[in-house]
Amino acid sequence: MTTHLTDLVTSIAQRARTASFSLAVASTASKNSALDALSELIIRDSDKILEANQKDLAGAKEAGLSMAQIDRLTLNPVRISKLAQSVKDVALLPDPVGEVLEKWNQPNGLLFKKVRVPIGVIAVIFESRPNVTIDCAVLCLKSGNAAILRGGKEIFNTNLVLADIITEAFKSVSGIPADAVQLIPTSDRAALNALLKLNTLIHCVIPRGGESLIRFVTENSTIPVIKHYNGVCFVYCDKTADMKMAQAIVINAKTHRPGVCNAAEQLLIHKDILEQFLPQVAAALVDKSVELRCDKSCATVLSKLGIKHSLAQLADYTTEFLDLTLAVRVVDSTSEAIKIINRDSSGHTETIVTSSEADARLFQSCVDSAVVLWNASTRFNDGFEFGYGAEIGISTDRLHARGPVGLRELCSHKFIIDGQGQVRS
Amino acid sequence: MTTHLTDLVTSIAQRARTASFSLAVASTASKNSALDALSELIIRDSDKILEANQKDLAGAKEAGLSMAQIDRLTLNPVRISKLAQSVKDVALLPDPVGEVLEKWNQPNGLLFKKVRVPIGVIAVIFESRPNVTIDCAVLCLKSGNAAILRGGKEIFNTNLVLADIITEAFKSVSGIPADAVQLIPTSDRAALNALLKLNTLIHCVIPRGGESLIRFVTENSTIPVIKHYNGVCFVYCDKTADMKMAQAIVINAKTHRPGVCNAAEQLLIHKDILEQFLPQVAAALVDKSVELRCDKSCATVLSKLGIKHSLAQLADYTTEFLDLTLAVRVVDSTSEAIKIINRDSSGHTETIVTSSEADARLFQSCVDSAVVLWNASTRFNDGFEFGYGAEIGISTDRLHARGPVGLRELCSHKFIIDGQGQVRS
Repeated sequence: MTTHLTDLVTSIAQRARTASFSLAVASTASKNSALDALSELIIRDSDKILEANQKDLAGAKEAGLSMAQIDRLTLNPVRISKLAQSVKDVALLPDPVGEVLEKWNQPNGLLFKKVRVPIGVIAVIFESRPNVTIDCAVLCLKSGNAAILRGGKEIFNTNLVLADIITEAFKSVSGIPADAVQLIPTSDRAALNALLKLNTLIHCVIPRGGESLIRFVTENSTIPVIKHYNGVCFVYCDKTADMKMAQAIVINAKTHRPGVCNAAEQLLIHKDILEQFLPQVAAALVDKSVELRCDKSCATVLSKLGIKHSLAQLADYTTEFLDLTLAVRVVDSTSEAIKIINRDSSGHTETIVTSSEADARLFQSCVDSAVVLWNASTRFNDGFEFGYGAEIGISTDRLHARGPVGLRELCSHKFIIDGQGQVRS
Repeated sequence: MTTHLTDLVTSIAQRARTASFSLAVASTASKNSALDALSELIIRDSDKILEANQKDLAGAKEAGLSMAQIDRLTLNPVRISKLAQSVKDVALLPDPVGEVLEKWNQPNGLLFKKVRVPIGVIAVIFESRPNVTIDCAVLCLKSGNAAILRGGKEIFNTNLVLADIITEAFKSVSGIPADAVQLIPTSDRAALNALLKLNTLIHCVIPRGGESLIRFVTENSTIPVIKHYNGVCFVYCDKTADMKMAQAIVINAKTHRPGVCNAAEQLLIHKDILEQFLPQVAAALVDKSVELRCDKSCATVLSKLGIKHSLAQLADYTTEFLDLTLAVRVVDSTSEAIKIINRDSSGHTETIVTSSEADARLFQSCVDSAVVLWNASTRFNDGFEFGYGAEIGISTDRLHARGPVGLRELCSHKFIIDGQGQVRS
């Protein structure tokens, strides 16, 4: 059985590798035609997609999944039409492939060019949302990569139909190989394990899902992984912060979409503004149903005013709540805030609210996180907000990609060197 | 014992992580002063270094290492003085840290800057050459990274002395932490295994050594690895090649330094020039003691002229000989050459010799290798030849770094975003 699965995924990976050579030199026009064709087929076949999705939803209800989980699996006509539009939007983005990133001459007359090229074959391992299937297929195609998709078992039927539609659309365009996007047609864990060892055929693995999925992939893959771990994001309100601005940023960072990785989980307040700022912001947060977990100094201030809160446990200071919960601490200085953040944050996104440019620059240079903002919400660590047009995730890695992973981050580079017969002496 | 080793390497990694925060903001002047101090101490303590090296050499002889292996371990006054000079040379290179790589505004007024920063903590696992210890320490320092070095047991004593000298030099400079470079003081494999799992403290592992070391690290590390695998490099002589140029390039690529990764191992010749070109180049190669392993067509041509050769086995076409051996094949076209290279090469370095720009551009765009040259020797895939001033190796990866890994490739980036109170709606 395991041998059979190994053969299956190996054969898929071999076909992907072959497809990757044509995709690397596919014209922008062909890639965009393929995307337009896909967008149209998604609309044409929406009944078929919805039917398969109903099957998955029935299974999910039977399996006792929560309403929130089931909502993530669900497609409906509105979501399908949005999906079709998102495919068209990617067609409009600039093609990242072929751009000359650097160009220089050496004294011996050699001309060097560093040119952006696709990575090659990318495997995406994801959980339940069916739009991820289309997203990944589309971003990989536009960036010239062959894609191998392995979705969660909860949306198995939906994914089978989507994969058929993708293949039909792509192979209708000359220059785009039918194997540009392939789905692993089984949710057996053994197939995933075998896939993660194919490091001569697959060049990059992107797990999209919860921490345990990412950890599993990292521990079992011999292929390089682009990871999208937790966001334990901090807002630090400095003593010179404009308090109205600080409050708006805290409220936005915490409550705009509490379940996502760039939401704030931690609030640090400079001691000089604690008495004045904490009551305002705490009242506004409580008003938005946020649960406050405070250190002793903050708790003392809030207790005096009868503002609802609890005492934080140590673990709260490093927790990604993904919920309407916020840990709150007082700090003595920007330097102390930096120290705490570099110790307790996950290195995803942090922001300082201050009127002092010196404090802002100190914070931005010393905080070791992917994105460090001054006077703006943590919610801006996002591919669309960066102007990338689309993203496949937000990398918490330091190699290759850090922060939003858009089309350019799905690419590698190669060096093209032109000579006139130079040899090395 | 294993617990003890795990504690040991964890404590080293924790100190490295702490050091990395100061190193990330260390001034260029401090880093250069530390390098100058190191260069001086290497000369001052050369007797001590040579004494320790003698101990290692005695052990190596006892262990029955070959003369070539022993030569790789050996330091002498000339090599030490070159080593001291190489440290000074790195001080003269531009500091990669802090450079603004991109800068743009979004319509909402946010100002984005992508800034180059160190990776953080880098572990380098290497084998026998003692100059690697200094090289890695110096390149990591200049790029603002904390380094953990784990050298081979054959140069254990030399490395202990070098590590002491590095620490003495670095800690003499204000702003450079004493833990900037640390040596793992044991060659126990269990310590390496424990090290490779510390992915929250160490951000990148660079194995420098043979294929089996790299494979071991790749299979056992949960930390991202920058790999320097084999070079099965091709020279393709097209039908319009200037034959004198082609011959010079083949000779240089094969014989200039046959034991290195950017040496040519494979020669492809267009059928139209086979009869004319092969005898010339083959005679010249045989003259340089190169063993030719040929396909049938090439063998037929050479047999007629009595030029020494043998028939190639299938495995020869994908072998990195690292020796004066060359596999030789005939091809029908540039397209066939591309197909063979994308199947049989290791994706390191390939070159086309041709007078046709169309063939050159086809070759350079379709060959999926890190460096693709036109009318120049494969030996130019090298950090110094690229003008990087120094390199820690040549990456065969596609993520992060591909090709020579210089100071800039030892860096990551972060995003600095300046706002005026923006929140996300």
